[in-house]
Amino acid sequence: MSGIDVVIIGVGLVGSAVIKQLSSVSSLSSLHVIALQNSKKTLLASPGKRLALGANDEWKQALAASPLNALSLDELVKRLHEIQSQNQSHIAVVDNTSDDGVAAFYPLFIQAGFSIATPNKKAFSGSLELYAHILHSALQPEVVQKGPLVYQESTVGAGLPIINTLDDLLVTGDRIKKIEGVLSGTMSYIFNEFSPPQGSTRKFSEIVTMAREKGYTEPNPGDDLSGSDVARKLTILSRLIPDLANELPEGYTSVDTQSLTPAGLRDEKDADTYVKRLPEFDAEFDEMRAKAQANNSVLRYVGVIDVEKRLIRAGLESYPADHPFATSLGGSDNIISFSTERYSPRPLLVQGAGAGADVTAMGVVSDLVRIAQRRM
Amino acid sequence: MSGIDVVIIGVGLVGSAVIKQLSSVSSLSSLHVIALQNSKKTLLASPGKRLALGANDEWKQALAASPLNALSLDELVKRLHEIQSQNQSHIAVVDNTSDDGVAAFYPLFIQAGFSIATPNKKAFSGSLELYAHILHSALQPEVVQKGPLVYQESTVGAGLPIINTLDDLLVTGDRIKKIEGVLSGTMSYIFNEFSPPQGSTRKFSEIVTMAREKGYTEPNPGDDLSGSDVARKLTILSRLIPDLANELPEGYTSVDTQSLTPAGLRDEKDADTYVKRLPEFDAEFDEMRAKAQANNSVLRYVGVIDVEKRLIRAGLESYPADHPFATSLGGSDNIISFSTERYSPRPLLVQGAGAGADVTAMGVVSDLVRIAQRRM
Repeated sequence: MSGIDVVIIGVGLVGSAVIKQLSSVSSLSSLHVIALQNSKKTLLASPGKRLALGANDEWKQALAASPLNALSLDELVKRLHEIQSQNQSHIAVVDNTSDDGVAAFYPLFIQAGFSIATPNKKAFSGSLELYAHILHSALQPEVVQKGPLVYQESTVGAGLPIINTLDDLLVTGDRIKKIEGVLSGTMSYIFNEFSPPQGSTRKFSEIVTMAREKGYTEPNPGDDLSGSDVARKLTILSRLIPDLANELPEGYTSVDTQSLTPAGLRDEKDADTYVKRLPEFDAEFDEMRAKAQANNSVLRYVGVIDVEKRLIRAGLESYPADHPFATSLGGSDNIISFSTERYSPRPLLVQGAGAGADVTAMGVVSDLVRIAQRRM
Repeated sequence: MSGIDVVIIGVGLVGSAVIKQLSSVSSLSSLHVIALQNSKKTLLASPGKRLALGANDEWKQALAASPLNALSLDELVKRLHEIQSQNQSHIAVVDNTSDDGVAAFYPLFIQAGFSIATPNKKAFSGSLELYAHILHSALQPEVVQKGPLVYQESTVGAGLPIINTLDDLLVTGDRIKKIEGVLSGTMSYIFNEFSPPQGSTRKFSEIVTMAREKGYTEPNPGDDLSGSDVARKLTILSRLIPDLANELPEGYTSVDTQSLTPAGLRDEKDADTYVKRLPEFDAEFDEMRAKAQANNSVLRYVGVIDVEKRLIRAGLESYPADHPFATSLGGSDNIISFSTERYSPRPLLVQGAGAGADVTAMGVVSDLVRIAQRRM
């Protein structure tokens, strides 16, 4: 059997989209799925075989009916090695969870010789120790490297070419001056509505409530408004920039992050109460917007990595009403701007949907393609 | 010696930038230059060795002083095979020329087992026969392929992630609905100045003359205003889209292309006379701009591939003054918009400098990195 063998951990929205792309796209026929796992069950291919996924999600029944309860990751590795000893193929693990436990296990997957492709931000935005462990094992800066590979395109901007572009800039010797972007789809939607270039008088609480009803926020919108998702993405990007090697955040919590949850609501854990009380704080947001509008500017919640100033920050900034972050952005788009030695004074910009199962899966599957191209 | 061996044909502005990146970036140390060639001379490494390029362009003297006059490509292949029989490395040819003759030779390079990385548009926008030849030998749609590889990122938008992004969309099963973009840096500059969102009264001829003085145009601006550069890029992109397999342009000259050279100037071959006579036609351009401005729109010279309508066209279009092609664009930026099944209604956008030696070289060197990752 020629190709690589793929193990899929996490089969929710993103995982299902990954499986759909793998099973319906004929040019991906060299990527063979040999294992599926969710929190309840594990489904393994027999040695020498691949899993038949089916065109209509037949894998869902097969996984539910599997006699194997979800294996521990240690046990999973052991069983995968048994399959590998027969198949003689390179194995790539796809982690579609947002689980800290799976992320913490990456060094052991790598030690086992397995590559990783994942949209899970945890391993790359958590402790510097875990990151260093992964970096040491696989994410080497060398162009060419023999061991397992770690790809993470979908951790920032889903399928948008962000990590790949940053890698290409760096590997060819460009120097990053500044990376700046709207990196959260939820924050993008909220501020595109709250502070459009032509101005608005709508209330912040009303927009957040609507975003929540449309399913654009976490169950508790406070989890979006904390800015921690943006801080995680900044951590991931900054760790790829060699010029920041000595100022890397210990983890996403050490990034300078402005929470938009009003001080009076910080301790409110109940999501419904949180949303109900949000109107009490509308005046604060109105004031910030009025100040921006008076300068013919808009408000955007952005992530900024200013390499020259050694500054990494997530927070609200104002941009002139004719800036691309004001005019070009809409919906829940992400936008990212790379100012580099080569791309200056005008930056390289990438924009588009930065969340959603299909575009996230696209980033993961593109990563798998690159692993297959390098490892078979 | 581990790595791949690189042959560089064409050492002008782009070629020099490629060499500079290869010789000054330490992570590229697995890419070994074994041959340089320009129209006069060839410089070959001794078998088992690589060329010492030097940190200060010492290769320029070495090439000029080479005892070998420029080899025919047939002869070059023969000599490279001799080197290869000793080095046992994969060879990649970088074609930095814009030469039809070098492009026509690609099938023979591929037959010889050599990969190709190039910003030269000729082979991919010329006759369908040559393209089919290359496609048959190397540009296979399969994810994984054993033979030589052909990479062409810099043929559209220089180092901007355009071909790679299109490849990723397609390989993961997305379907392209429409690609639309400002694909010529010269045209971008001219219309950003002539038709800004806030309107303008400046004359077309005056802006073209200024662009020429700044070195933004070809020696004869008529070569830019013909639109043929955009037609070439549209040919390249459309040939990558499987849904267009039956409607591919025979070559760039069969793309529906609007020339901006006024009818009365079509036969004017002398560049100075061309520019001197351009003001005679300012009224025509004023009229088009007035019509756009009356609709609160701007004029942009764009390339459009409308897959659903089976339409491939280069020409002037008007866009609302708040469209990204109006507001976000500046300088001589390229911008490209991919509307796909996944990225709709809002498209994926990539924007930035689309010409210049350093950014073009970056695309070429990134391609070489991918070849090295897959072939060593």
